Amino acid sequence: MSTSGMNYAPAPIPAPVVKENEFIFAAIGLDHGHIYGQCEGLIGAGGTLKWVYDPDEKKMDRFSKAFPFVKRAKNETEILEDKEVKLVTGAAVTSERCALGLRVMDAGKDYFTDKAPLTTLEQLALAKEAVIRTGKKYMVYYSERLHVETAIFAGQLIEQGAIGKVIQVIGLGPHRLSAKTRPEWFFEKEKYGGILCDIGSHQIEQILFYTGAKNATIVRSQIANYHNPEYPGLDDFGDAMLVCDNGATGYFRVDWFTPDGLQMWGDGRSFILGTEGFIEQRKYMNLGTKDGSAHLFLANGKEETHFNVFGKVGYPFFGELILDCLYRTEKAMTQEHAFKAAELCVKAQMQAVKIS
Amino acid sequence: MSTSGMNYAPAPIPAPVVKENEFIFAAIGLDHGHIYGQCEGLIGAGGTLKWVYDPDEKKMDRFSKAFPFVKRAKNETEILEDKEVKLVTGAAVTSERCALGLRVMDAGKDYFTDKAPLTTLEQLALAKEAVIRTGKKYMVYYSERLHVETAIFAGQLIEQGAIGKVIQVIGLGPHRLSAKTRPEWFFEKEKYGGILCDIGSHQIEQILFYTGAKNATIVRSQIANYHNPEYPGLDDFGDAMLVCDNGATGYFRVDWFTPDGLQMWGDGRSFILGTEGFIEQRKYMNLGTKDGSAHLFLANGKEETHFNVFGKVGYPFFGELILDCLYRTEKAMTQEHAFKAAELCVKAQMQAVKIS
Repeated sequence: MSTSGMNYAPAPIPAPVVKENEFIFAAIGLDHGHIYGQCEGLIGAGGTLKWVYDPDEKKMDRFSKAFPFVKRAKNETEILEDKEVKLVTGAAVTSERCALGLRVMDAGKDYFTDKAPLTTLEQLALAKEAVIRTGKKYMVYYSERLHVETAIFAGQLIEQGAIGKVIQVIGLGPHRLSAKTRPEWFFEKEKYGGILCDIGSHQIEQILFYTGAKNATIVRSQIANYHNPEYPGLDDFGDAMLVCDNGATGYFRVDWFTPDGLQMWGDGRSFILGTEGFIEQRKYMNLGTKDGSAHLFLANGKEETHFNVFGKVGYPFFGELILDCLYRTEKAMTQEHAFKAAELCVKAQMQAVKIS
Repeated sequence: MSTSGMNYAPAPIPAPVVKENEFIFAAIGLDHGHIYGQCEGLIGAGGTLKWVYDPDEKKMDRFSKAFPFVKRAKNETEILEDKEVKLVTGAAVTSERCALGLRVMDAGKDYFTDKAPLTTLEQLALAKEAVIRTGKKYMVYYSERLHVETAIFAGQLIEQGAIGKVIQVIGLGPHRLSAKTRPEWFFEKEKYGGILCDIGSHQIEQILFYTGAKNATIVRSQIANYHNPEYPGLDDFGDAMLVCDNGATGYFRVDWFTPDGLQMWGDGRSFILGTEGFIEQRKYMNLGTKDGSAHLFLANGKEETHFNVFGKVGYPFFGELILDCLYRTEKAMTQEHAFKAAELCVKAQMQAVKIS
């Protein structure tokens, strides 16, 4: 057993891909805090954040403190009419993300939304049609893979053959509820989309990505409200099994049961089983230790290794996305993949058996 | 965060419950190495191992080295006719375990078999009928709970309310294949029963036990032979979802993909989610460390604690079983529970969708 990787190491941290004003973007819709991660990711890759707009002045106030150089638009139109803006990123209420995306794409700009990117199959059909009509992108911030260093490194290890062919992915996505800090829409199912659509979207995207599948079938999905009767619209638990088109399989659980004694909002894990080894990610904490985040464990025929990759991997998605927008490529994420994950999230929720 | 439990600690290690010759037992059927654990457990609780029998002399030779005081019987009948023998423990080929049990019970003795205790619903019906007819016990060595200190401690914590009401159990039961060291019957499905019946039995028993359920429905089960085409009878992967009669749910994965670089035959885990906290068991190793076995992690409203309970919990099942046999009680395990786990293992295997 080695305690630092002997045979494997992360690829170098990506550098910014453009200079100031070479890729100008704006933020519209600040309903979910993920918008900060979306903007930080793009800025870190060289993007220039020019505008922000949200109908709620308080949300704009808070945003302006984090990004003091940003211009506050009077309305959405002011941004959509600015020809300098190449991309709009947003974290609107989940059920409104598609409508915003349609307006953005129809204005000739690429769209980069928080996950889940939409909540119904009707929205998905509109989004697909708009991509064809406008030639623009409808990209999604699946942050639990794209903005987590162990998740990126796991992808690199799989690509290098460190665990052979991936046959199964298990994802655990617990979250702290903190109900009193949440907005009303967080508890309205037609707005947040249900737990399998909402935080389940991270998991389904990871199952598709790590298995390399183009498609999957939701063979079983479940939701429950086990312990929060005062919020009848909340699913506090959900899980699902998927069978992928390439024969691999996946299981995930998501829940709102992170207890207050835990050091972190959630002990997110990912177990990736391959024919020649396995990977475990302890993304945000190493349970029962004070060792910080970004722990990845690799075991295969030759080694059992604990990697701490905090600050060592970076987030190549954002630079790739900027270049994809500039050069109309699909290196960061294909449109097909982004939509397939969205479709399966909606289907997992639609098919879910309510078990409690 | 605390690194040793402040609010919780294991119950005292149980002492032997009987003196020499107060509980005499015998071993018949040495096909699986679990027989050593079964005998050690009973001896540790005060039981007296008098006889051994297996038609294979080499297996008896090896057994006699581990237990030099044991008498080698000429045949099974010599043991079954010995009125001193209260219980026969065995680890026959899985598909033959029920037939042995019927002979044992019909001879007026309790039976304690390795898991899985049987491989078909027809055998289950015969076993249930024999229990009624003879008044004897058909108990099962579900070793991954009964003979694992974290597993016992987890049960104690749940009973003390440390995580509230249990709503879900996830079990991961990876095993190293070591195909060349395995007997032929290991690869013949009608003999070992299929992966969900065989090593899945540990997992289903734990789901029932930790959730406190009396029954459950297998809502989805899957098997595969992903990477061992030379052994067509082997399931090298299996997983299943259960919904319990009390509304709790369970998922487990079992597989034969433990890679050679891992320090242990399998990184067995158990994640128990409750309304007020959760428990993780790292039963046999703490991945990426040299910290040995028996790691349990507890998080709830007050704490996040790492317990190493190696040598601190013991295995109360065996003493309880001896007393149950002597006093006809059911403290170690009810017959209903033992049979229900067996039934669900067989059903999980029968219903399994072959995905590869």
